[in-house]
Order: sequence, then C-alpha cells, then structure tokens
Amino acid sequence: MTITVLRLGHRPQRDKRLSTHLILCARALGAEKVIYTGMRDPRLEDGIASVVKEWGGSFEVEYTASHMGIIRNWAGKMVHLTMYGLQAHEVVSEVKESGGPLLIVVGGAKVPWDVYEEADWNVSVTTQPHSEVSALAIFMHLLQGDAALRHEFPGGRLKITPNIRGKDVEVEGGRRGRGSAKTKSSGST
Amino acid sequence: MTITVLRLGHRPQRDKRLSTHLILCARALGAEKVIYTGMRDPRLEDGIASVVKEWGGSFEVEYTASHMGIIRNWAGKMVHLTMYGLQAHEVVSEVKESGGPLLIVVGGAKVPWDVYEEADWNVSVTTQPHSEVSALAIFMHLLQGDAALRHEFPGGRLKITPNIRGKDVEVEGGRRGRGSAKTKSSGST
Repeated sequence: MTITVLRLGHRPQRDKRLSTHLILCARALGAEKVIYTGMRDPRLEDGIASVVKEWGGSFEVEYTASHMGIIRNWAGKMVHLTMYGLQAHEVVSEVKESGGPLLIVVGGAKVPWDVYEEADWNVSVTTQPHSEVSALAIFMHLLQGDAALRHEFPGGRLKITPNIRGKDVEVEGGRRGRGSAKTKSSGST
Repeated sequence: MTITVLRLGHRPQRDKRLSTHLILCARALGAEKVIYTGMRDPRLEDGIASVVKEWGGSFEVEYTASHMGIIRNWAGKMVHLTMYGLQAHEVVSEVKESGGPLLIVVGGAKVPWDVYEEADWNVSVTTQPHSEVSALAIFMHLLQGDAALRHEFPGGRLKITPNIRGKDVEVEGGRRGRGSAKTKSSGST
C-alpha cells in the first residue's frame, strides 16, 4: 500500500514548524509524498528538500491550491484524520484490506465539510484532542505495523547507526562522524 | 506502567504550539504528567489546564528549572528519545519488562550530554529526522499497544462519540452537540 498525505490549510507564519514536523513524520514512516494546501511556502519546501537530500529516499512535497482537485481525482481510498471520526484501531483492518494507493488527509484549523463527506473513512486517534502529527504517526504505525519503522532511504549523504549512548553518523563516502551530544546535530528541529 | 514525560528546553515564542501538541499527545496516550524545563510559560500551562478541564482525566503539567533534579531523583527507569538511539521496536520489550514508573525524556533543540549518559535507554524512532511529537506517539503506542488508544478521561465536560461522517459531542449534563464540520470545534489546534 502506497501512502500519500494531504495537509490542509498551511499558514506559513503560524504552521511552519508543525507542517515541517508533519511532513517529516510522513516521510520517516514511509509516505511517498505530501501534498499541501493553504498558502504556498517555498521555505517549507526548501527545508524538506534539504532533509531529503541529506537523509535519502525519493520523498516529494507538492503544493496545490485546491484540495478538492486532489480528492476528486484520487484513484484509491481516502482516510480523513479527525478527532470526531471512528476509532483508528477499530477501522484500520478495513483500511488495510482495501489495498491500493491511500490518501490520508490531515486537517488544519478549519476543515471544509466536503472533506468529511468525500472521505471513505473519517478516523480518530483516541477521540481526544492532541496533534495532527501524533495522529498521523499512530495511524501510519497501525497501518504498517513495525514495518513503518524500518523503511530504507537510499542515496542520502547521512545515515545513523543506532547507538546506545552517543551519536554515530555515517557520512557519504565512508567517513564517520561519531560524537557526544555536544556535536551539532543535523536533525529537523 | 505509569508514564511521565520530561520535555526539555521549552521556548515560549518558538515552541508554544509544538510543546502544546507534545503535551496533549502525552495526555491522550495515557501519560500521567508532563514536566517541562526551559522557560516557564503560564500560557502553555493554562492552555493544557483548559483542555484537561474540558476533556477530563487527571493529567498534570509541571515546570522545573533543572532536568537533572528530576532525572537523579527518578525512582524508575528512563528512556531518552533521540534520533541517534537504539531502534524503538527493538528495545521496547526490554523497556516494558523493566516495569515501574517510566520517565520518557524528549529533547528540545540542544540536549545536554548528561541526558544521554543518565538514560537507561537512548531510543530512536526510525533513525530519521521527524518530530518529537511523532516519536513520542509511536513510542507510547509501542509500549502500550492499542491500549494507548483506549484510555478513559472521566470528569470532563465534553466527550466525543466516534462518528463516521460528522461531529457528535456529548456535553456534560446529557446535552448533545451534533454537527457538520462547520460547527466550531473544541480541539487543540
């Protein structure tokens, strides 16, 4: 199952870091692409492009003015994450069985009613208020199981070797950067 | 296993929304408390207190100036979430078996080296850059399984009944707010 995420209503001033976290979450857990609506934000796109260049994989970010164009032309099923929807752990098997490319729609502040109507499933993670970032993370983990945590990102300049106490980063060409936490990290936040 | 989250280095201007999302994620997935360091932020605390009042449960937020006081006096095990750590899905069984109260430490921009040293486990979710919010969500889901998504929050004024296409909110005293997506939501974001 391939996963594309549609992020609604991005506002560059207010949402820059949250949208960055959301998009990087989608990438790390195996989405192929994030499409976003709202205001176009070249700085957001450039930031993600740098992460992809440094850390590998073929992930893309794309802007579109209208969410309905994407939704109406989507050749697969669509999940809309909303705190009001059906419980994620109760509907996830049905979503998995549907196969095909999946579009996961993640709201901004005000989600138009047509999104609720067009979704094959409106899905909630806990029915409590939290974050579109945690909701997306949990739902992608439910969909893929621990395979969500084992995606490969070939072609990057940097690669981490898991380490019990320090930082072990392989740099393209075989150099290794090992260090204590005082070393500047190349992370997103 | 009870879970407390320690959020390091909060900066009110830059991190307000991310810290809010992180703290609400911790609450929704069953943490008892979030302690934060960095700059004290009454607006952050008030925002979370309102959510707890509206949505129930006994979750608390607490500020402390020094993370090392919390860590040194912690009567249980400690996990530090960092992209450089051991893979979450590979160490989670060991963490679960340890029992007792668990402290999950989540970084801000620069994590002091003593946190890496004091942690029983430095743990990464994917070894790719994404978000402390998604890392915490995934790790809490790994720890608790789908029980993470079924916590109860008694005593709130509002409660959602999962719905396939609209909003169905039970208001304290038995009133029901049903609506389309045009209804103003009481969510966090």
